[in-house]
Amino acid sequence: MGLLPSWVESANEPGCDFPLNNLALGVFDTDQGPRCGVAIGDQIADAATLEAIGLLDLGAPLLTHPSWNALMAAGPDIWADFRNQITALLHEGAPKRAQTAPHLHAIQGATLHLPFTVSEFTDFYAGRHHATNVGTMFRGADNALPANWLHIPIGYNGRASSVVVSGTPVRRPWGQVKTPDESVPRFTPSQRFDFELELGAIVGQSSTGPVSVAQANDMIFGYVLLNDWSARDIQAWEYQPLGPFQSKATATTISPWIVMRAALDPFRAPPPNRDIPLLPHLADSGDDFHDIALEVALSPKGGKAQTITRTNTRELYYSPAQQLAHHSTSGCPMRMGDLLGSGTISGATPDSRGSMLELSWGGQTPINLNGTPRAFLDDGDTVIFHGAAIAPDYRIGFGPCDGTILPALPNPYAP
Amino acid sequence: MGLLPSWVESANEPGCDFPLNNLALGVFDTDQGPRCGVAIGDQIADAATLEAIGLLDLGAPLLTHPSWNALMAAGPDIWADFRNQITALLHEGAPKRAQTAPHLHAIQGATLHLPFTVSEFTDFYAGRHHATNVGTMFRGADNALPANWLHIPIGYNGRASSVVVSGTPVRRPWGQVKTPDESVPRFTPSQRFDFELELGAIVGQSSTGPVSVAQANDMIFGYVLLNDWSARDIQAWEYQPLGPFQSKATATTISPWIVMRAALDPFRAPPPNRDIPLLPHLADSGDDFHDIALEVALSPKGGKAQTITRTNTRELYYSPAQQLAHHSTSGCPMRMGDLLGSGTISGATPDSRGSMLELSWGGQTPINLNGTPRAFLDDGDTVIFHGAAIAPDYRIGFGPCDGTILPALPNPYAP
Repeated sequence: MGLLPSWVESANEPGCDFPLNNLALGVFDTDQGPRCGVAIGDQIADAATLEAIGLLDLGAPLLTHPSWNALMAAGPDIWADFRNQITALLHEGAPKRAQTAPHLHAIQGATLHLPFTVSEFTDFYAGRHHATNVGTMFRGADNALPANWLHIPIGYNGRASSVVVSGTPVRRPWGQVKTPDESVPRFTPSQRFDFELELGAIVGQSSTGPVSVAQANDMIFGYVLLNDWSARDIQAWEYQPLGPFQSKATATTISPWIVMRAALDPFRAPPPNRDIPLLPHLADSGDDFHDIALEVALSPKGGKAQTITRTNTRELYYSPAQQLAHHSTSGCPMRMGDLLGSGTISGATPDSRGSMLELSWGGQTPINLNGTPRAFLDDGDTVIFHGAAIAPDYRIGFGPCDGTILPALPNPYAP
Repeated sequence: MGLLPSWVESANEPGCDFPLNNLALGVFDTDQGPRCGVAIGDQIADAATLEAIGLLDLGAPLLTHPSWNALMAAGPDIWADFRNQITALLHEGAPKRAQTAPHLHAIQGATLHLPFTVSEFTDFYAGRHHATNVGTMFRGADNALPANWLHIPIGYNGRASSVVVSGTPVRRPWGQVKTPDESVPRFTPSQRFDFELELGAIVGQSSTGPVSVAQANDMIFGYVLLNDWSARDIQAWEYQPLGPFQSKATATTISPWIVMRAALDPFRAPPPNRDIPLLPHLADSGDDFHDIALEVALSPKGGKAQTITRTNTRELYYSPAQQLAHHSTSGCPMRMGDLLGSGTISGATPDSRGSMLELSWGGQTPINLNGTPRAFLDDGDTVIFHGAAIAPDYRIGFGPCDGTILPALPNPYAP
């Protein structure tokens, strides 16, 4: 299948993130209050209004609230119906073009909000190069991968309350830190604040018991880019024995557009080679991975954005479906609106690493940022993720996922 | 202050968990649908109806939904007003006794639901004897307490979706396990399923930035007993390096009645002795601990309940307010409805340990349960927590927090 042509001409241009094939879902505001919208070219189709005036009929009003949760809850048949109806309205030669056209708004100038209400947030650790890099730095090359790593997708629960939409500034956190050569800890603004390049999977259907990998795949509604901001110095001191906590709780930024699973189906990819077969409950059920190109640009305050890494979601060792299946094994109820971060996606080469921790190798080999050495994030830095699945004549893009670092507040506990 | 006498005579009886001093909050159903109710003696005052008919006036309808979240959101002044108005209705000699009396229902026979909607669930590790016991078993006596333990309340995020109310059966989970002497992992029902005796603190007010210990104390709405069911064999294999995950996600049971903070104020207790002073942002702000006696009974299928441990919340090293303050240090937004588990509360002696793991010392020294050795939980076991703050002439009780273990399902992934 090639490009689906739309009467919205910008959607047909090469390099556009939002052709008719995509139909990414956001919540936008053009000073009339936040509403559900669908990205098309450089425009947003006001889906809430299209539903309200009857051009979109999903059997029940699902877009009356400014979030896509109600559509998610309606289930996969409605997801497909929704895509068919929006496609029919926006396709080249669409009979209802004239009625639809007044409900398009430029993306530029619109305020984008979180596209869904996050029920709970889980962050995995499913990138093998990332786990190997971090393990090598923390525990040495001989013990880089934890013993369980090739057998289960390691993950930990995060904070849904800290998930923010692209563009939200991120305040450098305070926290307790202690380096190995210090005798006592101190309370300080983080000096090793970092990004993590991840893919976020959105659970669109609930479950009450264990689900298979194939079932889990069907439960996934869509995907976002995800930046799991990380305070490495706080993390190093706090993470034993119960895992990361405050180091990951300042913010997690997601891209403003949900790319639905169906849009990425043409870009499905096979699993990686496995040194050790997975147990049956986690076995690969098919081409559950995706070929999505990712890159990160870093723009220092007043400076020029520079691409500092390029990688691909094919570097994941566990698919989002395997992450979700594992998440359910103990009977953990999974809920519509749950967000699963993949873990940092690093490639094999130094220029494809998905965090400053890895790019600067724990600060030992700073990168060259417009001629200046840089180990971690500075105040005023803007970190920008881009991601797209790329076909010969179109691409399925996510739109930018960015955040700017604000300086730490004065000591919030000063007497 | 002594017992506040009520015209509900059972509330004045010695040993009653719910005197007028308590006013614990639940959601109950007597076949007319779930509603907000207040425990008084062996009765429940139908608070939703009292509000609906105007005997209770909180300035706005706060009890129209079967959860106490709306009251929480209304803030501390309304919490106090609520207690004053309910006290005035139920006090001995209350002028409106006759109008109130028809809206009492026996606790016995009522179905109790979760008393609030849990936003997010965090589990701490704030009991020193528990951390020392577990650390000794896992890492040896010399490395029992992690290096950070005396400096910050270690915690990890759990799953709000898995929180259930007392009385909900708990299904033994499957999971991936590998003992050190096995060469490969296997997928199996947990053989080391356990309880954890904890106090749960309910966050009643939201925050967006770091809060002090004193502010955190004011944000706490109330308390419940909390059983963080734990699959020790799954935990041992999964928890490195990112902490417990599926081992803790099967279920967390809470007692059905929220004991409001004000009810426990007469039982405030000073902090423990500290070997190392806490940094200023976590310093003790006053008597933020409580003197609450706890006990656990274990009732095997068809057998008699036997008390297997007795301890006290004074064994905590970090108060709920210190846990909440630490939780906010990085700027993590805290929300009304967040639930913070204290971590297992064990005393110094072997008969005051708050988990089977500790009571049986990892299975090496099974306890004597009605003449039978017992290391972990068996199918059909019912675990029952009780807790109460005890004054000379009254007690503030939580009601039972119990759950019965159902056998594991057949392999959910069998071909």
